[in-house]
Amino acid sequence: MNSIRVFAPATVANVACGFDIFGFAVANPGDQITLTTREEPGVSITDIFGDEGRLPREAERNTAGIAIQTYLQHIGRTDVGIDVVLHKQMPLGSGLGSSAASAVAGVYAINELLGRPLPTVKLLPFAMEGERLACGSAHADNVAPSLLGGFVVIRSYNPLDVIRIETPASLFCTLVHPDIEVNTKDARFILKNEVSLKNTIIQMGNVAGLIAGLMTPDYDLISRSLVDVIIEPVRAILIPEFHEVKQAALDNGALGCSLSGSGPSMFALSRDIQTAERIGQAMQQAFLSVGITSDAYVSDINKQGPKVLESSVLS
Amino acid sequence: MNSIRVFAPATVANVACGFDIFGFAVANPGDQITLTTREEPGVSITDIFGDEGRLPREAERNTAGIAIQTYLQHIGRTDVGIDVVLHKQMPLGSGLGSSAASAVAGVYAINELLGRPLPTVKLLPFAMEGERLACGSAHADNVAPSLLGGFVVIRSYNPLDVIRIETPASLFCTLVHPDIEVNTKDARFILKNEVSLKNTIIQMGNVAGLIAGLMTPDYDLISRSLVDVIIEPVRAILIPEFHEVKQAALDNGALGCSLSGSGPSMFALSRDIQTAERIGQAMQQAFLSVGITSDAYVSDINKQGPKVLESSVLS
Repeated sequence: MNSIRVFAPATVANVACGFDIFGFAVANPGDQITLTTREEPGVSITDIFGDEGRLPREAERNTAGIAIQTYLQHIGRTDVGIDVVLHKQMPLGSGLGSSAASAVAGVYAINELLGRPLPTVKLLPFAMEGERLACGSAHADNVAPSLLGGFVVIRSYNPLDVIRIETPASLFCTLVHPDIEVNTKDARFILKNEVSLKNTIIQMGNVAGLIAGLMTPDYDLISRSLVDVIIEPVRAILIPEFHEVKQAALDNGALGCSLSGSGPSMFALSRDIQTAERIGQAMQQAFLSVGITSDAYVSDINKQGPKVLESSVLS
Repeated sequence: MNSIRVFAPATVANVACGFDIFGFAVANPGDQITLTTREEPGVSITDIFGDEGRLPREAERNTAGIAIQTYLQHIGRTDVGIDVVLHKQMPLGSGLGSSAASAVAGVYAINELLGRPLPTVKLLPFAMEGERLACGSAHADNVAPSLLGGFVVIRSYNPLDVIRIETPASLFCTLVHPDIEVNTKDARFILKNEVSLKNTIIQMGNVAGLIAGLMTPDYDLISRSLVDVIIEPVRAILIPEFHEVKQAALDNGALGCSLSGSGPSMFALSRDIQTAERIGQAMQQAFLSVGITSDAYVSDINKQGPKVLESSVLS
């Protein structure tokens, strides 16, 4: 009986201006998964902790389960039997890439357990199947950074073209998750199908500035580029006190602040851990001023992707 | 009597995916300007060569003239008297940044002639006034690369935020100007005011890929990113044989090929001068197959901006 326990990081998709094409991974929070081999072929979810009973237990309806199943089919190992225990360590439907972290943890773990038949980057399509299940489309802006670590551009989906962007040395992330829920599908539904050419140009300028700012690195340029004129103005409506919370982050030294993915969580970037902590307190206080409690996570950027926490593998 | 002769480079605006936010300068062609001081205050265009009599001779209606006048007003030196001779060395209305090169040459020359009271980057707004005269709006995607050299992002116009992107070592440009004319205002008029969100996302992915490709450098990534799904499909209609000419460039080793600015000139990038030459011949041949003659320019990227060719300054 072999077993492995893997951590995969939460992620911030979009990163203000980069709707659907950009994301990064954080050191904390993240999900953990434990896989244990068994004799009977197939994938079973034997337990899920931390989801308050809300996630499906059937493997083919669970993001981690489907990712592992799709992977085993692809490598022709449907003979393998796997018991899965999922340890959710972040809120669901939060905009923190919860489903992506579980899918990435699952597919990374099974690949490790089987002696790494595929290189890490080749695991992406299987994790994306988990996203298809969770969100209705196989988007990659959470799974790619969760799997590869750091900042990742999804240049194209057809064919899939994923580019890692070097992470600046001094960059910290504050995540604040207010205790309200926004459904990812709703958050997408309210977006307009058309964008003015004027706003497209402004957004492209900020995307170019953000990539250049990260790669130089030029923190002022990063800050000036963390501006979203297309998505944020629409989705902010779903978050009570959005503008006050954002202003609290900026007033306390954030390089920028916007929705994390489709929200309701909000992220802020800053240059040191003390600033990141102070930003978190200010953002929480702003939410609390209208009676909304929240959780805050402060960490550096995850640069490595998933991590094996324990393994007991007999070859 | 002091005099100076300055060269300023032609430029490729947009660079496929970067409509209105991106451009680069080429080593050849470019415009030259000669300024000579005189006693009587004011700016006069005393001669223009190479324009077939088409450019206005009144200083306030000439892109170089207005750039110099605006500069002199700004630094409070309307006492200065200047005779201007303009040597146009590229076709007008060609998409090669002809008006920008003249304006940049003019404002760079007057600043040098007066002992450089302003640093080069501060000259940009005056050159942009030349563009306002020529095109109806003070756009910067030609003047900024002509003035600063290399690849330049215009992240924002309000406030003006211009970012230089490092030029990869092995990059060459082929420019082909067919003997047809497209008016810049017409080329802008046919654009749609709305863009689908889907195409905005594709374009943002390519902008991110192009910046990352140039900065890494990663020539394959540059190549994959030189794709324009928003502007090129509309403007290509104005250029006979556009798709055949582009295919000829790609078949002969181009990393990418698209309109230079609003056309009708087309640019192609490649990794060595022999390939760049071959691409030029193939593009010209494709135009010639439908009876369109053309001029081709092959050069490396201009990395320095304008250059003083001669000066005779008594202090």
